[in-house]
Amino acid sequence: MLPKGTRDILPLEKKRRDYIKNTLSEIFESFGYQPIETPALELFKTLSGKYGEEGERLMFKLMPRGAKFDELGGLSTSEISTRIEEALRYDLTVPFARFVVDHRSEIAFPFKRYQMQSVWRADRPQKGRYREFTQCDADVAGTAGSVQEAELLQIYDRAFEKLKLPVTIRINHRGLLQGLAEMAGCGARFIEFAMGLDKLDKVGWEGVRADWVQRGLEVDWSRIDWMPEVRGDWSQALGQYADRMNPDRESPAFRGLEDLRELEAWLAAAPLGHARLELDPTLARGLDYYTGCIFEVSVDGLELGSVGGGGRYDDLTGLFGLPGLGGVGISFGLDRIALAIDQKSAFPEGIDPRPGLMFADLGGAAAKSAFALASAWRSQGYSVEFYPKTEKIRKQMEYAERTGIECIALLGEEELLNGSLSIKNLRTGEQQVFNQEHRDLIFEFVLNSGDQTL
Amino acid sequence: MLPKGTRDILPLEKKRRDYIKNTLSEIFESFGYQPIETPALELFKTLSGKYGEEGERLMFKLMPRGAKFDELGGLSTSEISTRIEEALRYDLTVPFARFVVDHRSEIAFPFKRYQMQSVWRADRPQKGRYREFTQCDADVAGTAGSVQEAELLQIYDRAFEKLKLPVTIRINHRGLLQGLAEMAGCGARFIEFAMGLDKLDKVGWEGVRADWVQRGLEVDWSRIDWMPEVRGDWSQALGQYADRMNPDRESPAFRGLEDLRELEAWLAAAPLGHARLELDPTLARGLDYYTGCIFEVSVDGLELGSVGGGGRYDDLTGLFGLPGLGGVGISFGLDRIALAIDQKSAFPEGIDPRPGLMFADLGGAAAKSAFALASAWRSQGYSVEFYPKTEKIRKQMEYAERTGIECIALLGEEELLNGSLSIKNLRTGEQQVFNQEHRDLIFEFVLNSGDQTL
Repeated sequence: MLPKGTRDILPLEKKRRDYIKNTLSEIFESFGYQPIETPALELFKTLSGKYGEEGERLMFKLMPRGAKFDELGGLSTSEISTRIEEALRYDLTVPFARFVVDHRSEIAFPFKRYQMQSVWRADRPQKGRYREFTQCDADVAGTAGSVQEAELLQIYDRAFEKLKLPVTIRINHRGLLQGLAEMAGCGARFIEFAMGLDKLDKVGWEGVRADWVQRGLEVDWSRIDWMPEVRGDWSQALGQYADRMNPDRESPAFRGLEDLRELEAWLAAAPLGHARLELDPTLARGLDYYTGCIFEVSVDGLELGSVGGGGRYDDLTGLFGLPGLGGVGISFGLDRIALAIDQKSAFPEGIDPRPGLMFADLGGAAAKSAFALASAWRSQGYSVEFYPKTEKIRKQMEYAERTGIECIALLGEEELLNGSLSIKNLRTGEQQVFNQEHRDLIFEFVLNSGDQTL
Repeated sequence: MLPKGTRDILPLEKKRRDYIKNTLSEIFESFGYQPIETPALELFKTLSGKYGEEGERLMFKLMPRGAKFDELGGLSTSEISTRIEEALRYDLTVPFARFVVDHRSEIAFPFKRYQMQSVWRADRPQKGRYREFTQCDADVAGTAGSVQEAELLQIYDRAFEKLKLPVTIRINHRGLLQGLAEMAGCGARFIEFAMGLDKLDKVGWEGVRADWVQRGLEVDWSRIDWMPEVRGDWSQALGQYADRMNPDRESPAFRGLEDLRELEAWLAAAPLGHARLELDPTLARGLDYYTGCIFEVSVDGLELGSVGGGGRYDDLTGLFGLPGLGGVGISFGLDRIALAIDQKSAFPEGIDPRPGLMFADLGGAAAKSAFALASAWRSQGYSVEFYPKTEKIRKQMEYAERTGIECIALLGEEELLNGSLSIKNLRTGEQQVFNQEHRDLIFEFVLNSGDQTL
């Protein structure tokens, strides 16, 4: 039994996850991103206060150890809280910021890194959502311009193209959300305004307006009632928002529109080949930390929630004593991506290769000879299993069948005497006798058997 | 800052670790072992009581959450202990046993799995020893015979050969230790007898005898005083122990010698090609759980402690309600292996490939054109960076130099007009002008520059 919201990864699933991770690594590295890892355990003070109230509640915190554990007896709950020293990683962004500060003298800026590791959140478990899950992040520290956003969108584009998942990337900008809130007369409460907007997908425009009312927001709908009508590709939509909002130069909306137009110019130079881009001024993700562009990726045709997201944070490392360093990053949700590829039946063939050949253990001196052959062929580069028990041949074949081994090699007393070997294809039933020396012929038989399964 | 005993893994180190893990995976799979992963979090009741008193103390335990956390206030320390529900993985063997029981209907026995994941122990940190470290384990559940031990020794042999580390594998058997303790008249306290013996490397035979005295053990040294004289390769030593001990058929020593002789016969059929084997009846590792053979691997010529170990446990899953299932396994200590390969300068060249080419950002329309070229070449399979800021060229070159990029591509207003591109090799200073269309010539220049560094 396992803790709630956690799970074991079985071999096929593990290989599928490795396929996704390897695909992502390759793409990250072709853009010059370098891999790092950080420990699962971070100091509680590093993580605390970074994820809002909910994050604080969902974080996995460690018991103090040794003498510090012994001191807990009789303390009040709030005193116990103050004794917490360590917690499990809650995302990869805060540890990245801490990493950049700790290693600032060893790394070159702009620092481009990728990281694929587990994070822990005591969320309510649901389909495709676990308490221990893997994020694959690419971030850059020390850049300001929109070219970096364009590059990250290219990474999304290449990655989902390679993974054969049709995706839509929705783009927004914090400045746009602020501008809309101001237009509607509730700029002072723009976070709540945005929270309401973010529900559009689920509740429709009527629902959004009801949500605002419930929050006690006085939204002047007549100023933004054109929003539902904006349609078309993201460039067109961007033009329409610019026309309608026409913000003055000092407003956050002005910067928002300018950043997005700059991004558009970079992408016009090198258009995405696969992903569909959408401007979505209702997208309100990560407003606790994102200060510029915001992205969210979903798989077309699947009700799965987002498979990725990201954005720009103007002051990545200020909280750790290194102010003025901007950052931008994207994240891939490994668990949901695996689910999506499975649902689209888009995993490539041959992702879970098994040895094509297993030697049966027929006992006595013959078994030793079989063991020696298996060993020799393995050092010559072939994958070969040896069944480790002298058992009924039926049982040994059953094992081979269950684990996906195609052929079984039989080397008994007779074969030992005349230097031969019988190979039986378990699927077709075909059986052939070989000279033990004829390794190439043997593997031609074994590997061709495999081919016929395709 | 990080919790005591933890560390960040920087890019070069990360790639070195991946090289080791990939090498091990390949070997594990060529023997038919399949990869799994288990969660970092296990139920505390799964881990508790499995690692002795020390393990219990060094285990990282999680704070209860939510309402359960609120209930801790005012409890005594021992009451708080009873509220612990989750802990971090302490090794990979107990989670493997739990996995086998949980998934017994989905897997085929004998079940051969490998697993490479972090484990957490609040040990005193020292060189090459961290509180969060990675184990790479291969285990088999559901076998009894020594052929399985022979196969695992082959895995060690292949792995350290591929990793270019000269190693010695020391072998012992719990039965041998029991037999020696009985011969010396202290069979009833054989664990303490073994603990004394295990110190031989550090304190010599005089020290071992002093240790026994200190423990209050009455050891009849005259019965085992031939031990220090046994020399030679492991087969010879095994013969000498058999002669000297000559145990009766019912004794643990009899089984021990028989198991080891059987192992010797399998290895005679397929001798190890790289590792040196040594019989070491003073090796007393993991006696809390090992019931048969015991292994420990060290790198010749380095004072580093063991880089691997393993053994047989007759009842792997009994504690989880599935009795009678024997197991045997080996572990590789990734962190120490990485240290050893580094100390032996045995990492292969080219383990940390960087893009050979970076486009400078020279601003304006030329930058957009450079961005487009970088993007096009990347989709054609080349690794290309684009510097994401219009900054002084000196600064951009500095970045390329610090991150190991060999060549920088300059596309300014002039190049934009005439469709050319200047490539400068930062190391040699060589600079050449190309037609932007001549991609093949350009990468010939870039990649050949790289070659000259070798």
